[in-house]
Amino acid sequence: MTHTVAVVSGGMDSTTLAYLAAEEGPVTILSVDYGQRHVKELEFAARTAERLRVPQVVVPMGWLGPMISGTSALVTPGVAVPDGHYAEDTMRATVVPNRNAVMLNVAASVAVAVGAQRIATGVHAGDHAVYPDCRPEFIAALDEMLRVGNDGFLPDGWRGVWAPFVEVGKDEIARIGDQLGVPWTDTWSCYKGGPVHCGACGTCFERREAFTLAGVVDPTEYQATPEYVTP
Amino acid sequence: MTHTVAVVSGGMDSTTLAYLAAEEGPVTILSVDYGQRHVKELEFAARTAERLRVPQVVVPMGWLGPMISGTSALVTPGVAVPDGHYAEDTMRATVVPNRNAVMLNVAASVAVAVGAQRIATGVHAGDHAVYPDCRPEFIAALDEMLRVGNDGFLPDGWRGVWAPFVEVGKDEIARIGDQLGVPWTDTWSCYKGGPVHCGACGTCFERREAFTLAGVVDPTEYQATPEYVTP
Repeated sequence: MTHTVAVVSGGMDSTTLAYLAAEEGPVTILSVDYGQRHVKELEFAARTAERLRVPQVVVPMGWLGPMISGTSALVTPGVAVPDGHYAEDTMRATVVPNRNAVMLNVAASVAVAVGAQRIATGVHAGDHAVYPDCRPEFIAALDEMLRVGNDGFLPDGWRGVWAPFVEVGKDEIARIGDQLGVPWTDTWSCYKGGPVHCGACGTCFERREAFTLAGVVDPTEYQATPEYVTP
Repeated sequence: MTHTVAVVSGGMDSTTLAYLAAEEGPVTILSVDYGQRHVKELEFAARTAERLRVPQVVVPMGWLGPMISGTSALVTPGVAVPDGHYAEDTMRATVVPNRNAVMLNVAASVAVAVGAQRIATGVHAGDHAVYPDCRPEFIAALDEMLRVGNDGFLPDGWRGVWAPFVEVGKDEIARIGDQLGVPWTDTWSCYKGGPVHCGACGTCFERREAFTLAGVVDPTEYQATPEYVTP
């Protein structure tokens, strides 16, 4: 039995991750409020914790936004969230420096404290181009850093950083989640945080694309369907 | 010219670090309130920022204490801070899991955001026995993780993690600080946070020992001088 501390944002990747982890043992869901404009994704992460009947730990990182203000559209009021596909250069504006490393190191603190055997992240192959902290090389370097930095204090049976989707695309995640019975309406992807998914931002684009490619029914209500979504 | 983001706790090691960094360029002082019992050390870090006329960024991590409560005497009310020398097994109770990694990764977020060339930590050789995240192997692994995890986003001239004392003892830090003119009365070491240094806890013991071995006058007022201090 493996106890997993899973970083869950409420999106389809990390929600599927939580369901996958729950197949192998206890899960502690760790959600981070790192100063994003809306807390909607935290509420969706809470839904997953409720469904799985596992604890959710919310790490308040509201201070991170003002501290690094000016470096990222996600934390800077007045800077528009860019529309379009993630691979575009404009998406670089959504990068919070070293974000995954901070979140996953906090997850490791919790894991060591509660005696969990691994920390888990829902990074996937589609994130590689833009985000260096979503690549396999980063996962390996973090894994090594945690082993060295916590030598003698790691829980018995420590398995390190678990990133089961790091080499697969988002469409494969949709397939895996479908098999696990993930209730997709309990997941939230949109960066804009409106009443329903906007349908136009980078994450909405990827979400729709993943369901389409996977051949999985997409139950999401989108506000708009821009021309570039259906080629 | 090198801009340094230095993690400063207000103790003699990190204060000397800040003064050393200031010799080579701008400094941003980063202090972390990670849920310790007293905020006294934060006030002493602020004194250093004032003396050096550099900004201090305080990262509120009060949530970390309750989250990992039970794992460390430093964050658990009701668990006594052990007296005696650091090398003793009892000092293990003062370890906050993965603490340096969290602090230094936040420092890296700030460094990338403000365009600083390095992050700095005052870890020294005397910490190695008890704290794995104070060893050279950890510094190297963190340095690698930051390079990989922030590939393409690191400021020009990035120099990584600077740990100038990692191979030297605390007495050598006292000598270096003395040469730099560090005002020792503006530094705070005691874990207990009383009106003056208690003189009996592990950090007080190390502080006195460092000054004695270095042949540097110790201006610190200690509440008590236990028998084991003077052999």
